[in-house]
Amino acid sequence: MKLYDYKPAPSPRRVRIFLAEKNIEVPTEQIDLRAQSQLGEEFRRLNPQCAVPYLVLDDGTGIGESMAICRYFEALYPEPPLFGRTPVEQGQVEMWNRVMEFDGYLAVAEAFRNAAPGFKDRALPGPLPLEQIPALAERGRLRVARFFDALDERLGATPFVAGDRYSVADITALVTVDFAGWIKLGLGAQHGNARRWHEQLASRPATAA
Amino acid sequence: MKLYDYKPAPSPRRVRIFLAEKNIEVPTEQIDLRAQSQLGEEFRRLNPQCAVPYLVLDDGTGIGESMAICRYFEALYPEPPLFGRTPVEQGQVEMWNRVMEFDGYLAVAEAFRNAAPGFKDRALPGPLPLEQIPALAERGRLRVARFFDALDERLGATPFVAGDRYSVADITALVTVDFAGWIKLGLGAQHGNARRWHEQLASRPATAA
Repeated sequence: MKLYDYKPAPSPRRVRIFLAEKNIEVPTEQIDLRAQSQLGEEFRRLNPQCAVPYLVLDDGTGIGESMAICRYFEALYPEPPLFGRTPVEQGQVEMWNRVMEFDGYLAVAEAFRNAAPGFKDRALPGPLPLEQIPALAERGRLRVARFFDALDERLGATPFVAGDRYSVADITALVTVDFAGWIKLGLGAQHGNARRWHEQLASRPATAA
Repeated sequence: MKLYDYKPAPSPRRVRIFLAEKNIEVPTEQIDLRAQSQLGEEFRRLNPQCAVPYLVLDDGTGIGESMAICRYFEALYPEPPLFGRTPVEQGQVEMWNRVMEFDGYLAVAEAFRNAAPGFKDRALPGPLPLEQIPALAERGRLRVARFFDALDERLGATPFVAGDRYSVADITALVTVDFAGWIKLGLGAQHGNARRWHEQLASRPATAA
């Protein structure tokens, strides 16, 4: 088994933190996204979506998409459960994880990829070029600001994003907050709840994964 | 238990088909999105995300996000499994469902919401207004065309989107193909594999849900 990874990128970090929280060790190989190695012939043959993280099992089966890799490991090693325990908890975790992704993670990615000079014609991940849309970068920044407010409000009501227990939704939210640093946005003094939560998560050993 | 629904919209259709495949009956209430009832005070108090589908349990717990509602029911009624059986299958289903969503469903939604006159300032779902971005509508149409090609290629290799078995990834892909009709895009004569698959799915009773 091997996990294709790139240490500096936010998306594989979600998987690394998830694995570390479960104490699962998987051999990794770095794919240098800065050098666009994910678009090279060798990696493209492995994963035609040209993206990391990408997991290859011993029989050659490949699993792409961060949350799909996490689901595979959750099914294999259920403890500690990071996608919820009871049916209601599972629904809540999936809901909050989706909200963190759509309102947070994707908004940061939109703002970053549609403005960064190094991502010209790479406005979305994947094998095919797509032009940047400056208005989308601008909209992304607006959405990130709203996301911080909403995250802070949520964390004023519950200790973790999906409720009383740490879950994959916290991983997504944490990685999103740190990713926002790439576009020079961050939690403000008014986001006391989210800052307290971020500090608490930063002290978990898995967060450094 | 009550499922807030809107019959003509693609997103709640994913949940209705999922429930019908599992033979689960849930009382529904229609929220008229065309009249923007989801933004009204009454529904907003229930679901501040102002979106359907939205499930409310008997104890008042709310679950939003189509896939979160499906996950709740999958945990409660595992048979037939629509998110995969083994860990590998679960990973594959989540991967393909994500690919159908990001490359397909979201591309159609981008193309539709950023161009339709009725969605002025409603370019994304949710409580807050966002201006349409014409370039995003155009990019969405380009991505949908690519998506049809990729879907057809995939369905030349396996009978169902995630492999040998019908899964939630088929539901997402089917709803996406039908949703694309809203922007006057559809499978072409060259998409024989996808057309055969679509025809076969259309004959399943649950598809009419």
